[in-house]
Amino acid sequence: MVDSPMLRALELAKQAALAREVPVGAVIVSSDGAVICEAHNRIVELKDPTAHAEILAIREAGEILGSERLMGCHLYVTLEPCTMCAGAISLARLARVYFGCLDPKGGGVEHGACFFDQPTCHHKPDVYGGLYEEESAQLLKDFFADKRG
Amino acid sequence: MVDSPMLRALELAKQAALAREVPVGAVIVSSDGAVICEAHNRIVELKDPTAHAEILAIREAGEILGSERLMGCHLYVTLEPCTMCAGAISLARLARVYFGCLDPKGGGVEHGACFFDQPTCHHKPDVYGGLYEEESAQLLKDFFADKRG
Repeated sequence: MVDSPMLRALELAKQAALAREVPVGAVIVSSDGAVICEAHNRIVELKDPTAHAEILAIREAGEILGSERLMGCHLYVTLEPCTMCAGAISLARLARVYFGCLDPKGGGVEHGACFFDQPTCHHKPDVYGGLYEEESAQLLKDFFADKRG
Repeated sequence: MVDSPMLRALELAKQAALAREVPVGAVIVSSDGAVICEAHNRIVELKDPTAHAEILAIREAGEILGSERLMGCHLYVTLEPCTMCAGAISLARLARVYFGCLDPKGGGVEHGACFFDQPTCHHKPDVYGGLYEEESAQLLKDFFADKRG
């Protein structure tokens, strides 16, 4: 059941790369697995430093569901969320987060702020890392190799 | 020079309370003190858990300035930014953050994640806390007393 949204998130990450955005994709599904919305990074396009895939998906899900609390929903994202996104995930009350590869430089879940383990985090989702880890990481490697090339 | 944007942020926080949003206001100014944009919390109105005053102001400033990097700009906000907003402030490359009262329960600058002090934080703004601290705190106290009353 977790494969299909994660494969879709990988597709979205590829679309991001084609648009010259850092390739990260995200999908939000309800607790019964129905896709609610999807997004990829659009930072450069929107001139918006907050336009990470997770933030765009959370905002759209709130609009679709008519609530700022996405109770019971699950987020799939190809990269470990950064600190900003970890904060947003907690505020959105997402029940679960599935992510692809780790981000030692910028991650906020398993690295640095480790936000979900902080006393200032008032909702901690269940976290499942490492889904399609190699595929997620390869997209990022290819993107940055191209940029430098 | 710092009084005027902070007084305006307090006015915006009062407007938030009238709209039944948690009273937090924010103003972004350029390095020469010109106001670029302003916002208050709109979480309930927009059904968006990320619609904190800081995030809305950062998004609007990026649009106005035509860049996802708000180099040299200063943010004024009536409450210590949460972890999500601290992350966004860093990603936006804001040069300075002035804030009102501390937020021991949810702050991400002086509490919990203390994000600007993390190795995963790649841009650390100068931070000045405690501006109009009592006024900022009183607005929040009144709002939550009203809600409980």
